[in-house]
Amino acid sequence: MKSERQYREEIVRFGRMLYERGFIAAKDGNLSVRLDDDTILVTCAGLCKGTLSADDMVLVDPDGRRKSGDRAVSTEMGMHLLIYHERPDVHAIVHAHPPTATGFAVAGMALDKPILAEVIVTLGSVPLARYGTPGTPELADSLSPLVPHHDAILMANHGVVAYGHDLERAYMNMEIVEHAAKIALVTHQLGREQMLPEEAVRKLNAQRAEYNRAAQAAAAEAHRATGTSKRPQ
Amino acid sequence: MKSERQYREEIVRFGRMLYERGFIAAKDGNLSVRLDDDTILVTCAGLCKGTLSADDMVLVDPDGRRKSGDRAVSTEMGMHLLIYHERPDVHAIVHAHPPTATGFAVAGMALDKPILAEVIVTLGSVPLARYGTPGTPELADSLSPLVPHHDAILMANHGVVAYGHDLERAYMNMEIVEHAAKIALVTHQLGREQMLPEEAVRKLNAQRAEYNRAAQAAAAEAHRATGTSKRPQ
Amino acid sequence: MKSERQYREEIVRFGRMLYERGFIAAKDGNLSVRLDDDTILVTCAGLCKGTLSADDMVLVDPDGRRKSGDRAVSTEMGMHLLIYHERPDVHAIVHAHPPTATGFAVAGMALDKPILAEVIVTLGSVPLARYGTPGTPELADSLSPLVPHHDAILMANHGVVAYGHDLERAYMNMEIVEHAAKIALVTHQLGREQMLPEEAVRKLNAQRAEYNRAAQAAAAEAHRATGTSKRPQ
Amino acid sequence: MKSERQYREEIVRFGRMLYERGFIAAKDGNLSVRLDDDTILVTCAGLCKGTLSADDMVLVDPDGRRKSGDRAVSTEMGMHLLIYHERPDVHAIVHAHPPTATGFAVAGMALDKPILAEVIVTLGSVPLARYGTPGTPELADSLSPLVPHHDAILMANHGVVAYGHDLERAYMNMEIVEHAAKIALVTHQLGREQMLPEEAVRKLNAQRAEYNRAAQAAAAEAHRATGTSKRPQ
Repeated sequence: MKSERQYREEIVRFGRMLYERGFIAAKDGNLSVRLDDDTILVTCAGLCKGTLSADDMVLVDPDGRRKSGDRAVSTEMGMHLLIYHERPDVHAIVHAHPPTATGFAVAGMALDKPILAEVIVTLGSVPLARYGTPGTPELADSLSPLVPHHDAILMANHGVVAYGHDLERAYMNMEIVEHAAKIALVTHQLGREQMLPEEAVRKLNAQRAEYNRAAQAAAAEAHRATGTSKRPQ
Repeated sequence: MKSERQYREEIVRFGRMLYERGFIAAKDGNLSVRLDDDTILVTCAGLCKGTLSADDMVLVDPDGRRKSGDRAVSTEMGMHLLIYHERPDVHAIVHAHPPTATGFAVAGMALDKPILAEVIVTLGSVPLARYGTPGTPELADSLSPLVPHHDAILMANHGVVAYGHDLERAYMNMEIVEHAAKIALVTHQLGREQMLPEEAVRKLNAQRAEYNRAAQAAAAEAHRATGTSKRPQ
Repeated sequence: MKSERQYREEIVRFGRMLYERGFIAAKDGNLSVRLDDDTILVTCAGLCKGTLSADDMVLVDPDGRRKSGDRAVSTEMGMHLLIYHERPDVHAIVHAHPPTATGFAVAGMALDKPILAEVIVTLGSVPLARYGTPGTPELADSLSPLVPHHDAILMANHGVVAYGHDLERAYMNMEIVEHAAKIALVTHQLGREQMLPEEAVRKLNAQRAEYNRAAQAAAAEAHRATGTSKRPQ
Repeated sequence: MKSERQYREEIVRFGRMLYERGFIAAKDGNLSVRLDDDTILVTCAGLCKGTLSADDMVLVDPDGRRKSGDRAVSTEMGMHLLIYHERPDVHAIVHAHPPTATGFAVAGMALDKPILAEVIVTLGSVPLARYGTPGTPELADSLSPLVPHHDAILMANHGVVAYGHDLERAYMNMEIVEHAAKIALVTHQLGREQMLPEEAVRKLNAQRAEYNRAAQAAAAEAHRATGTSKRPQ
């Protein structure tokens, strides 16, 4: 069973990885973990997420009220709360601005063409949420219809949010999005793109169902082991 | 209160970051910190800024005269002096050649389209100064009208200068510029660009005003703590 | 003579290199080494290959049956078995998704134009296998006609597989493919490409014959030293 | 005065930097240092230059005959000998395949447009040598007319060679070439390029003359200190 301290150290580690890979610049981005039904651990505003220490986070309740500490909560807290509310299976969220995927988001293009087997198996497709001012309910409104059906979302003129049953999975989903965007950009530059035929996509979607079942089982196992439970809707 | 030694070590650290991220090549770039009204600490000419030691800097006065040491002052000293003179709130400057933003500068394009929420909140827009021979008053002349209104500037056929109330902020502004340029390049490659509507930009500009107020307050606090004062104009 | 432990540590090392260079994202990719005629050491499914420990592999026989351990074998095992079966000289295989080369694979373009001397000497050309669903016999069928004649293959809408007489060579072949793809992409972006004349290609092909003879001799020497023998077909 | 051991360690260090920055893949590239009029220290063929140890080099005489050790000399030795013969002021050479600059070389494009102040001051322009089969006199013939007038040269369908009065300068010249190529590629992608006016180029050329005079003086000083002398022509 992981302690709060261990979750804090995971946030430090994945924040450093976001920064080292250039997925965030300056003081961009934020990360959170849902510790239990009543408690979310989230990074503070105004810090570089690449060089956090384990104390640079605060605890909030499911309505975003600070439970401890006096530092400013991430300005994107509303986005995190929305996702935790809509998705009881989600226990961690990563928001960043990986440059290639964010370029697609600025161009107004989703990553939803069936061109890469691995991406279909892991994420399906990555939709584009219409623009909403960061840190306001506008943004939550634009995300709301997409959150139940996707594990990563491009946000127009803004960046990417990815989530999963634990922080590693949330981070890995972010990596998959940027990797897929890089490949899609190369095909765009080459001026050619071979779509997968429908039959092939159908087989890959079946693999994703299996992939998700396995992941759910692993997540359930992990939650049992760490004593957390799903938050009732 | 930071000692001169600590400022020297900060320059070493951010110089290494510039080099590791490919923002400078060979012996490009320079960094400075205004220690007090009469003293600027600046990197020497002819050294790789990625592998500095704490002794590879000199102290100069506000007219650029060397106050200690006998090594050659950065050839871009005039640019630093101009900025410190025009902006009493600025205490640190970073000059580098990040390749994507410098590509925009060579193409004669500012980074001033309203496409990214985060950039509008932190920097507003990044203008392009017309070409002036590096190391000559021509360059200072081209920067002069822009310095009061911007915290980072593209310099045509040359590179980027960024500054702020401390060295971390100056460096972070450089990172934001290159990150924004990478995203803008992707959108250019994709051949599509969704501008933010005027109303959205207005809201983000209001957030920037708030962001700057908070940063000014933090800077004032930090200056009080370190005993430095603003230089009278 | 290398021990199984040493081969495990080699897989850890080259897995980390794949991840650090961005050739794999999340839990992509797999690596294997043929220890002897009856035993293949291969990475497990569902792990990030960038942060493996020496225990994160299983032993299988040439038909893919697990000989020890109870973790899930790589879903791409069929591809590995095919290559080992077709190529007795091959003792190690790396599968990854380097973004530029994978972009060519999604565009439906092989890397087979004679534009780079070094690539002709080391790999000759890199063909494109038609799409087959990963983890199924479809994929093996599409690779089968190409495996005897090439040491690295692009797989449409999927990624790259590279192999060689040892793991270092297999990994290096992957690096050559991505490096060649990056250069080819730049020439595509510049809109110009100078092909090597036939006579020049003939000379480079002769150098490759010599290069391979030297590598075969070194491999034979290494196999003698480590006591392994070629697997009879 | 540097010992042979120290030069070996410099080659190890700059070889690692070439590899970490992606300027070489697999076993590409080579580095050499002229220790004195009769002795050149050069990397061996068939090794990854990113993970050399201090013993992975051989000593040769100015005609390329091995003076010690029994490992294979770099296949590009002829290129090194040509440059040392033509340029008595050169004491170190680096050959690599940085992907952007090599893309220009494959496209048949020199890096000779006056677009970047820093590049004009340090290198002037970077010409393109016509193709010659690597490791043959053809290549030396194509380089020969360019070597006296340039410190870095693109080689068509091959890569880049850079050199200088010491190994750091040779390496730094390689970095400048790739950095300049990256910036030029961005401008090409943006579809715009502002050339510097003639008068500006004239001023920068004057700065280069001064820059080279300072470098020559420093080199002469360094040679005096290390007891080496220029090789008579």
